[in-house]
Amino acid sequence: MESQDSQMKIVHGDFGYILEDVPHFNDYIPSLPTYPNPLRSNPAYSVVKQYFVDVDDTVPQKIVVHKDSPRGVHFRRAGPRQKVYFKSDDVHACIVTCGGLCPGLNTVIREIVCGLSHMYGVSKILGIDGGYRGFYSKNTITLTPKVVNDIHKRGGTILGTSRGGHDTAKIVDSIQDRGINQVYIIGGDGTQRGAAVIYEEIRRRGLKVAIAGIPKTIDNDIPVIDKSFGFDTAVEEAQRAINAAHVEAESAENGIGVVKLMGRYSGFIAMYATLASRDVDCCLIPESPFYLEGKGGLFEFIEKRLKENGHMVIVIAEGAGQDVLTESMQAANQKDASGNKLLQDVGLWISHRIKDHFAKQNKMSITLKYIDPTYMIRAIPSNASDNVYCTLLAQSAVHGAMAGYTGFTVGLVNGRHTYIPFNRITERQNKVVITDRMWARLLSSTNQPSFLNPKDVNEAKKEKPPRTQLLDSDSCEDGQQSEKQADGINGTKN
Amino acid sequence: MESQDSQMKIVHGDFGYILEDVPHFNDYIPSLPTYPNPLRSNPAYSVVKQYFVDVDDTVPQKIVVHKDSPRGVHFRRAGPRQKVYFKSDDVHACIVTCGGLCPGLNTVIREIVCGLSHMYGVSKILGIDGGYRGFYSKNTITLTPKVVNDIHKRGGTILGTSRGGHDTAKIVDSIQDRGINQVYIIGGDGTQRGAAVIYEEIRRRGLKVAIAGIPKTIDNDIPVIDKSFGFDTAVEEAQRAINAAHVEAESAENGIGVVKLMGRYSGFIAMYATLASRDVDCCLIPESPFYLEGKGGLFEFIEKRLKENGHMVIVIAEGAGQDVLTESMQAANQKDASGNKLLQDVGLWISHRIKDHFAKQNKMSITLKYIDPTYMIRAIPSNASDNVYCTLLAQSAVHGAMAGYTGFTVGLVNGRHTYIPFNRITERQNKVVITDRMWARLLSSTNQPSFLNPKDVNEAKKEKPPRTQLLDSDSCEDGQQSEKQADGINGTKN
Amino acid sequence: MESQDSQMKIVHGDFGYILEDVPHFNDYIPSLPTYPNPLRSNPAYSVVKQYFVDVDDTVPQKIVVHKDSPRGVHFRRAGPRQKVYFKSDDVHACIVTCGGLCPGLNTVIREIVCGLSHMYGVSKILGIDGGYRGFYSKNTITLTPKVVNDIHKRGGTILGTSRGGHDTAKIVDSIQDRGINQVYIIGGDGTQRGAAVIYEEIRRRGLKVAIAGIPKTIDNDIPVIDKSFGFDTAVEEAQRAINAAHVEAESAENGIGVVKLMGRYSGFIAMYATLASRDVDCCLIPESPFYLEGKGGLFEFIEKRLKENGHMVIVIAEGAGQDVLTESMQAANQKDASGNKLLQDVGLWISHRIKDHFAKQNKMSITLKYIDPTYMIRAIPSNASDNVYCTLLAQSAVHGAMAGYTGFTVGLVNGRHTYIPFNRITERQNKVVITDRMWARLLSSTNQPSFLNPKDVNEAKKEKPPRTQLLDSDSCEDGQQSEKQADGINGTKN
Amino acid sequence: MESQDSQMKIVHGDFGYILEDVPHFNDYIPSLPTYPNPLRSNPAYSVVKQYFVDVDDTVPQKIVVHKDSPRGVHFRRAGPRQKVYFKSDDVHACIVTCGGLCPGLNTVIREIVCGLSHMYGVSKILGIDGGYRGFYSKNTITLTPKVVNDIHKRGGTILGTSRGGHDTAKIVDSIQDRGINQVYIIGGDGTQRGAAVIYEEIRRRGLKVAIAGIPKTIDNDIPVIDKSFGFDTAVEEAQRAINAAHVEAESAENGIGVVKLMGRYSGFIAMYATLASRDVDCCLIPESPFYLEGKGGLFEFIEKRLKENGHMVIVIAEGAGQDVLTESMQAANQKDASGNKLLQDVGLWISHRIKDHFAKQNKMSITLKYIDPTYMIRAIPSNASDNVYCTLLAQSAVHGAMAGYTGFTVGLVNGRHTYIPFNRITERQNKVVITDRMWARLLSSTNQPSFLNPKDVNEAKKEKPPRTQLLDSDSCEDGQQSEKQADGINGTKN
Repeated sequence: MESQDSQMKIVHGDFGYILEDVPHFNDYIPSLPTYPNPLRSNPAYSVVKQYFVDVDDTVPQKIVVHKDSPRGVHFRRAGPRQKVYFKSDDVHACIVTCGGLCPGLNTVIREIVCGLSHMYGVSKILGIDGGYRGFYSKNTITLTPKVVNDIHKRGGTILGTSRGGHDTAKIVDSIQDRGINQVYIIGGDGTQRGAAVIYEEIRRRGLKVAIAGIPKTIDNDIPVIDKSFGFDTAVEEAQRAINAAHVEAESAENGIGVVKLMGRYSGFIAMYATLASRDVDCCLIPESPFYLEGKGGLFEFIEKRLKENGHMVIVIAEGAGQDVLTESMQAANQKDASGNKLLQDVGLWISHRIKDHFAKQNKMSITLKYIDPTYMIRAIPSNASDNVYCTLLAQSAVHGAMAGYTGFTVGLVNGRHTYIPFNRITERQNKVVITDRMWARLLSSTNQPSFLNPKDVNEAKKEKPPRTQLLDSDSCEDGQQSEKQADGINGTKN
Repeated sequence: MESQDSQMKIVHGDFGYILEDVPHFNDYIPSLPTYPNPLRSNPAYSVVKQYFVDVDDTVPQKIVVHKDSPRGVHFRRAGPRQKVYFKSDDVHACIVTCGGLCPGLNTVIREIVCGLSHMYGVSKILGIDGGYRGFYSKNTITLTPKVVNDIHKRGGTILGTSRGGHDTAKIVDSIQDRGINQVYIIGGDGTQRGAAVIYEEIRRRGLKVAIAGIPKTIDNDIPVIDKSFGFDTAVEEAQRAINAAHVEAESAENGIGVVKLMGRYSGFIAMYATLASRDVDCCLIPESPFYLEGKGGLFEFIEKRLKENGHMVIVIAEGAGQDVLTESMQAANQKDASGNKLLQDVGLWISHRIKDHFAKQNKMSITLKYIDPTYMIRAIPSNASDNVYCTLLAQSAVHGAMAGYTGFTVGLVNGRHTYIPFNRITERQNKVVITDRMWARLLSSTNQPSFLNPKDVNEAKKEKPPRTQLLDSDSCEDGQQSEKQADGINGTKN
Repeated sequence: MESQDSQMKIVHGDFGYILEDVPHFNDYIPSLPTYPNPLRSNPAYSVVKQYFVDVDDTVPQKIVVHKDSPRGVHFRRAGPRQKVYFKSDDVHACIVTCGGLCPGLNTVIREIVCGLSHMYGVSKILGIDGGYRGFYSKNTITLTPKVVNDIHKRGGTILGTSRGGHDTAKIVDSIQDRGINQVYIIGGDGTQRGAAVIYEEIRRRGLKVAIAGIPKTIDNDIPVIDKSFGFDTAVEEAQRAINAAHVEAESAENGIGVVKLMGRYSGFIAMYATLASRDVDCCLIPESPFYLEGKGGLFEFIEKRLKENGHMVIVIAEGAGQDVLTESMQAANQKDASGNKLLQDVGLWISHRIKDHFAKQNKMSITLKYIDPTYMIRAIPSNASDNVYCTLLAQSAVHGAMAGYTGFTVGLVNGRHTYIPFNRITERQNKVVITDRMWARLLSSTNQPSFLNPKDVNEAKKEKPPRTQLLDSDSCEDGQQSEKQADGINGTKN
Repeated sequence: MESQDSQMKIVHGDFGYILEDVPHFNDYIPSLPTYPNPLRSNPAYSVVKQYFVDVDDTVPQKIVVHKDSPRGVHFRRAGPRQKVYFKSDDVHACIVTCGGLCPGLNTVIREIVCGLSHMYGVSKILGIDGGYRGFYSKNTITLTPKVVNDIHKRGGTILGTSRGGHDTAKIVDSIQDRGINQVYIIGGDGTQRGAAVIYEEIRRRGLKVAIAGIPKTIDNDIPVIDKSFGFDTAVEEAQRAINAAHVEAESAENGIGVVKLMGRYSGFIAMYATLASRDVDCCLIPESPFYLEGKGGLFEFIEKRLKENGHMVIVIAEGAGQDVLTESMQAANQKDASGNKLLQDVGLWISHRIKDHFAKQNKMSITLKYIDPTYMIRAIPSNASDNVYCTLLAQSAVHGAMAGYTGFTVGLVNGRHTYIPFNRITERQNKVVITDRMWARLLSSTNQPSFLNPKDVNEAKKEKPPRTQLLDSDSCEDGQQSEKQADGINGTKN
């Protein structure tokens, strides 16, 4: 896309070093005045040895390296800068949350407010009510440290949220009319794509308005970043449902517990919840196609496992088996308001199919219990580790906007906070790589079939794998992948 | 130390690349036979694109870089290798847990057993009962996947543990006599120092016995690695005590809640628990000295905060204020069995001092409640994220031992699993850097005094800061620090 | 029913005193030998002032009394007796669990085993696998204190369970063939009806086999007793789902959270969960009919509440609105295996109806989230208070069987453990009395409409109300109700 | 005491019926006007069949009866009355909380406010800040349904609390000066004694001011009532500490976990927490004296249990072993502000004694971990069952005050809400009866020694036992006890 190319700021260095930089006011507004960072006079920071991030600090995307590897893609490091592009009194910030709930939303809101207020002395902060549409269809909410003081102990978002369509021009009009000059946008990939378009329009109009994204996705399906906030909390809470399914299954003859977990396009929650539990016999995710009938199919495996153990637990991501489901439903492709495919409830569907199968077969009487903990998981407050993570994300966003960066999202890359161009996190989705060792670990722990025939295996191995980001993927692929991606961007041969 | 120098295997490369490698059987036993890795024939791994870690994969310690930075220190990447140095039937492994409890111990035990068994077909696995001494003073426990199946849902360690002295020669005799050839040692820095000595003795005797360490420290005080297992769980559980202290304090006039958290030499748990909560008014850690009386002292701050808010919460790490305490106690320096200073209970001490102060002063009547949740935190099972982390640590250790590496610990470095020489994690302790921005964040969130006079501030800034490892320290220092450390290793004076 | 009449042992006393006694071996087997209760020699009981329940101890069903009230129905008090009808070595006990899961099943099993073993020195105890059918279709499980030691910390039932049809003759054959002489039956009203039939058959055959029931119903729909075990745990766990629904509703514009809770015929869980929460705007239960459309209907109320508050939470018991649902579905009355009406999922149904209504109406765009926590609630372990309650129920059953009572269930009546004839707890179901003040309290706390027109109100007031049992119903009705029930039994006018 | 006798309103009836009634305005103010109860026009109550408690409804204290038992002591049933003694607009209520924290305080406050407001249309409700002293030393807090809406989800008390001395005259002056005419007093036995004195003074001055007590004691040491609010929550939360102690003990060689639980004079929490857990080897309570050294002593038992099991868990109530402790400390009897003996920390003391013993003995090396979860238990919010219980207590108090009753506390007696004269709940403390079967159950489950020599056993059996109230004490004693108490009051022979 041209608009995205125009965003890309690529810097090359020695030994294959590439920096994918983020936009800055200076790119399109000449001669802006700067001011010393007020953190200098903050007593809490008086002991800090070096207040500010070095202007040259960058973080590599690829860190499994050989002695002679080229250095590859880097991102700009997040953090406070010596000079800021706003006087404290001139800042007029707003915060908006979009899309589904995710543990930690309120913590991010709280820490943007507290960060702006305590670190930079900003007092004008608005909350936009009910997602993007709230910019033009609703009143704003005044946010102060006092208002947000306890909100991190509650689930949900105090700002409200919504999915779906919005009018970019109206949003930018509203930003301009209200005199807002810092916009913090918390939402998933659709939301970040929206943020990219808003940024483009802001830039087109030549406005000094910083657009900062904080990526939110409980599914962990945003690429480049190590993991999304709320993910740990979600995996933890999912244990509760898996335990219940296990107890129900164990207590019945040929008991089957089915748990549906979040994950429209990526099975990370299902995979990690399965690895963290140990009571799961089969984990089905969107990335790994499966089939029901016949040799090597799910029904055969269920029968085998019930005969061995007398019970079993199946975890299924909400986007798993869409091809089988669609085929079986012959349902038209409907779209929901956000543009995502309106997925049928795969948990109810597979539960019915399994019951039907064993009823027809008439060999084995089963008892199946289906649990859908989705909204109970989404709605809890973030745990301690996500709380700290959200705090740092929020502060990084605030530092970036104050420093004049715009059109960026904040993200943890290899454990370091960075600023990432919008297009890098919206151009594709992070997915579980089924040719990676993390998925092999799962298969090894559940002993479930791979549902792949030898031809599929070869195909799978040939695909270009995006990398698994949480913890160590342990796959030698990441190195190569990053290099290939680098290829795609600048045509350099490694 | 000479023995440690003998362990160091340093490899240099272009552009300042340094690899700090770990020992291998080949270093002291010539012409060992090798065997193909049995994972090749594991159906779960059949889809994995590239089974094995490339022999040249390494991970940099320093990843905040400039365009022209030298590449610095790297560690060998963990993971399965093409060739293994043991036939499955010949492996005779044992596992030992030492030191205090930590969430996740049982998960690590479980996953070593399951990893050896399911990935490498090993059937002879022993548990050593009650720590190092168990090698020669107790019977062993037979470990199978069935025995360890549910243990990750329980706190503590099924093997039992103990602190303190042990006889290296007797341990190595026992290893030799029992025919053990893989030793997995889970414990803190004292334990890892012990493991280093055991490795030296094994090497001296020329035995083909792999010594693999899994570092355990609830305090997160082990250097180099990103964080220790169980830490997240501990910070989460600490919230419960802080909440209770807050409720007690709020309900009384001039109510003070004091919570003591773990941390003999490092205040990480106290710092992260404080950042994750938001109800804490003052966090005292070993790294940041404080004083009680007079201007800028703790008593003055308490009085001020009580006047403002009517209540306050203090979190104190168990090793905080040792100098003030010692002075005030004039207690002799006693040593406990593990060689740690037998610390007086700083929580009881400071509670008494605060009560005394306000009683004597007779201006303000206070109500103080003291909570020590230490054993309630240590004894809980690990949460989901620590469960997955423990699994990967255990599997990395197993892959390393099978591949003939020895004298190493496993550790997460910048989100990648690596093998690290013992001396790198025992030579010093990981500490909170009070001149780093993470501590400044805490000061900013609590608004507590820094307890430093201007002279101290300057001193503090001059010190060589070890890096804060969890998440992003956001400090520009790490780069420089790593370089200096690299210096220290290759002959440069600091 | 004649068979039931034959069970009834009614004793009359002065001042309107009535004892509804339970059967005893002596009723149909003459001249049985007795033995001194072994508790006499139990050191733990050596300090107990009076070992044994007085043979004349009884507990009144009606305890809200006037100065001149007649005394009414009493039940025999549970507890150990001086003489027992079994030698310890001769006892051959078995335990069976039937029907759906309920928190506390494992605790009851554990305490029957430990009670028989520790108090009475019994060593032959069998578990029947998978409910009633297990008597003749499966192997038994040997139960010892060691086997059951930790099971109270797990949800579900280690014995397995099943619903539905069974063959009484085969069961009694199996009891006779295996030489079992004490049968402990844990299950709901269907199960207890089965137990009554088994008892009749045992009596017909003249066997010295004690049949003791422990009533289990998570719905609290068993009459006479104060509350059923597991109920407190279920209400507690339901809070989690209500909280999540509240967060989801609050975070969306016109957000509606719908939570389905257990309760096929009785809305106790829904009512108590609503009273314990405070975030519920509307609670729908089987006992209180409602309608959707038109003035005073649910849709009108939803619209009103959304306009006032912007969001709302609806709790619906699984058996609520069956008439409206059936009408709307025109579904045939199917029966499931246990003989209960196969209820359609009212939660999914009402969610669809609400969405449809607002979609058609096209005035208000709503966001509805539906949560069904049923299996997550059923499968958790019992909380501390249910643990103690289950212990006492189990011990009461053991004392009763040892003392030669049979054909009884144990139950808490006004806080005292008693033995109750089967027919008293199976002849009708305990229901929420919507003309009682507890339901008025709920209406008052939610401000929901009563869905009753003036005619209905008058009708409702005329109905004979069974009493609400948990805590204090505060209704003057109980007195009158009990008296009326007394009427049924002995014709006395109040 | 004479003043108390003057409070006693005894009514006699047939068949040994005794009513211990509570005071009423009519007792000392003639010809007060009455008004119809506003509940009549409350739509939520429109379906209630019989709005009001019959003026003659009473509840027996003794309900284990024989065919020919006399009827014994009864209390007046709580609930709304036909006529009230206040116009809604004239009510000026206040609420005060005194003493230590207890789960449920905020729920009681919330429900008094909501009850007065929603049921009786009262709008003037004040909170007294910081306990009794707040009447004259602090400003009041305005309470509305909106202010208290979410407070039941938080621990502690939003009103603040304090212990100790207060000036009755000043309090009554303040009540009179502010025009308060309903006083709701939430607190323990000391507080209720204070309330009795305030009531006496109010009566002496002839004021139309209702004094209603809600008894609060986490220890469950208030007599007559079934159990105190917050008790269930406390027992539940105590499990957490016992589990931790068990894990710590199991993981060490000769590991001992010591948990101190609340209970200055009564061991109910320790006893129920022990019965609900099952991991406890020894439970020490104030009611059952014990000794450390010699045959049959605690040290001998510990040694025996460690030799058998390798570890053990001890639960000790804070008031246990005071005689041994005092002896060993020779500490003077100090009094704390509330008049309770300032107890030394028995948990720390016994931990030291055990360590000392085994260190001196030098036979067995032990590892002891001491956990004091007191403040973590007190500070949590009440669970669902306590929430409902607190609601009914609060509503009973409101109904009573509106109906002109005064000088009463509300309390659950045999599952029914009643009004109880102050002196009946302050004249003695509820204690665990160690000659009752509940304590025998505990001894049986832990297998601990009774620490009684044969002489003590006989003594113990001779003592007059107050009854155990929670659930069923199963002791035949209650009947006799009640009779004896009845004796004490009116000299009538049964």
